[in-house]
Amino acid sequence: MTDRLDDLEVGYDIPARPGMAEAEVQTPCLVLDLDALDRNLAKMAAAARAAGLRLRPHGKMHRSADVGRLQVNHGAVGLCAQKVSEAEAFVRGGIADVLVTNEVRNPAKIDRLARLPLLGARVGVCVDDLANVAELSAAAARHGTGLDVYVELDCGGARCGAPDAGVAVMLARAVAEAPCLTYAGLHAYHGGMQHIEAPEDRRRAAETAFARVREAIAALTAAGLAPTVVTGAGTGSWPLEAGSGLYTELQCGSYAFMDADYARIRGEGNARLDGEWEHALFVLTEVMSTPVPGRAVCDAGLKAHATDSGLPRVAGRADLTYASASDEHGVIDDAGHTLKPGDRLRLIPGHCDPTCNLHDWYVGLRGGRVECLWPVTARGRGY
Amino acid sequence: MTDRLDDLEVGYDIPARPGMAEAEVQTPCLVLDLDALDRNLAKMAAAARAAGLRLRPHGKMHRSADVGRLQVNHGAVGLCAQKVSEAEAFVRGGIADVLVTNEVRNPAKIDRLARLPLLGARVGVCVDDLANVAELSAAAARHGTGLDVYVELDCGGARCGAPDAGVAVMLARAVAEAPCLTYAGLHAYHGGMQHIEAPEDRRRAAETAFARVREAIAALTAAGLAPTVVTGAGTGSWPLEAGSGLYTELQCGSYAFMDADYARIRGEGNARLDGEWEHALFVLTEVMSTPVPGRAVCDAGLKAHATDSGLPRVAGRADLTYASASDEHGVIDDAGHTLKPGDRLRLIPGHCDPTCNLHDWYVGLRGGRVECLWPVTARGRGY
Repeated sequence: MTDRLDDLEVGYDIPARPGMAEAEVQTPCLVLDLDALDRNLAKMAAAARAAGLRLRPHGKMHRSADVGRLQVNHGAVGLCAQKVSEAEAFVRGGIADVLVTNEVRNPAKIDRLARLPLLGARVGVCVDDLANVAELSAAAARHGTGLDVYVELDCGGARCGAPDAGVAVMLARAVAEAPCLTYAGLHAYHGGMQHIEAPEDRRRAAETAFARVREAIAALTAAGLAPTVVTGAGTGSWPLEAGSGLYTELQCGSYAFMDADYARIRGEGNARLDGEWEHALFVLTEVMSTPVPGRAVCDAGLKAHATDSGLPRVAGRADLTYASASDEHGVIDDAGHTLKPGDRLRLIPGHCDPTCNLHDWYVGLRGGRVECLWPVTARGRGY
Repeated sequence: MTDRLDDLEVGYDIPARPGMAEAEVQTPCLVLDLDALDRNLAKMAAAARAAGLRLRPHGKMHRSADVGRLQVNHGAVGLCAQKVSEAEAFVRGGIADVLVTNEVRNPAKIDRLARLPLLGARVGVCVDDLANVAELSAAAARHGTGLDVYVELDCGGARCGAPDAGVAVMLARAVAEAPCLTYAGLHAYHGGMQHIEAPEDRRRAAETAFARVREAIAALTAAGLAPTVVTGAGTGSWPLEAGSGLYTELQCGSYAFMDADYARIRGEGNARLDGEWEHALFVLTEVMSTPVPGRAVCDAGLKAHATDSGLPRVAGRADLTYASASDEHGVIDDAGHTLKPGDRLRLIPGHCDPTCNLHDWYVGLRGGRVECLWPVTARGRGY
């Protein structure tokens, strides 16, 4: 993808050009309310500071070096990434400290990861298998670089990670002894916990997870391997991690944009998370047909927003329901017969991460005009 | 996106380079079994010829000018597209006849559509609203071009389209009388019908749909507006449309690649559709963690395959179940403890259309080697 906007044609390559009125933007596309984004970024940065915690937002959500740099400007220590190619895109885009919150096993990927510090960045990665420690160490030695290595603990997510404290200690010791690797700490993230709706259920899941984290920290400390960084947490649970006394770094991502699924989840003190964070990301769509009264069809379907966490909401229009999505169409129930072809709506996507990954560009809006056009830098970079 | 492969780095920009062994391909990525693809294309072309019908495969499925040109080489009259920007990508990629199987209402999009014949292509579009006929006619007149216009009939899908034969006649008359427009025929596609599992239920839905189509054709003929082309049908239902005596053109798309959802659907004569069509499209994935016995985690999640029509199947491995998808991970139940990090699997995606749209490249394989690397030409082109 090129960034040279002068070469690109609106409606073919790009949805908009800076300076355009919002009404001229081509749909469907991602739009960012830049004022709301700024407020979300400032608020989370202040909350982390107040709690005495480092903030390393998860860049897998936005996959944007531009949004990442804004987060760093607000005081984030760097970004998280999920993929080596994503980490490369962030480093090339000016993010100087990137943690790959995953295991990397493919030899070619390990090689690319170990080369990444040559670009001047601090690079971290997770391990959950002894053989991988030797692979990472050999690659870093080959390139004369170093990697920060975090021991990943499965604290209840049942995905990757050391299954217990004993395995965590064994891994930490191997990392500490391996040439060219720095034993950087413990990675303990529980994704599923984020999406538990009732605060009491979420708190119970958190207590179980934190018991595992506490046990691992105690075992590591007893072995002389006390982790200096304990990293994890997400938008749906971070006040719990922050209050646990266990974590030193937060990885929240969705707070920046906010989606409909997180908005359904009640935060601590019974406020809904959409009271805590503003919706800054929308899919702009246009009505293309109103064939019978009460049914409007818009131009944003499965290829414009992800439906894995539910259908989108129509922003500011409680009278409208996005009823079904096909590949390129959305059917909207319009009981009041208010819509006509050409009308535009802002959809709040069900799940921001895979929605952003569908698009090549963010159209940044302020005061009804396009202020910026940012590439989704790491879109499609799954390697 | 550039096509200049020499400028691109494997693992960062591209998943593979022609000549590579399959084992070197970077995951996750789309791979095409080129032999299976060739057989599917030849088989559908032969079936359409035998039925005396035109074949205009739907390009929304693959979004690839390369696959489209193969289809044309097999005798297809052109491609269908869902979006103007997709039609532009096909025309620029060498497809000389493209039908946008949708209404186009945005003024900028109408303008781009009406300019497209200037590139030497025949371009069609659908209408379901009288005002749109005048918009299209004015745009074509402005650019000195012509557009083929099809009247879209809602034959039961409850999406876009004229709700009855009377509206269809009114629209056809307006098109026939409008300067710079050619009244090209009737568009009658019923997407939902494709996915009805039991043949008898699908046949019943088809009969209801065909009654509407028959009524519309009769009304148009009585009005002196007999449609020369009646176009529709998909992979899940085309033998019904072909046998109806109503349709003259088939729009099947998925037959070329075949996905897990269609494979669940039984075809006519009780054969399953995956007996009729071969799986030619796979998401290649690699195991990145086997943290506890029986659980393997692979590197392909929601950003590598679409889950709107169900989770993927693991090709050739009935002993493995792709159990859950998160953004970048897939958890695989491996009761036999057969998998280890670095092992590779081919996933058959639940739904090929939105899966292809997640990726930038097709890696074409023949005999275990990369034969070609084709861009997903219209990926992300939703405008």
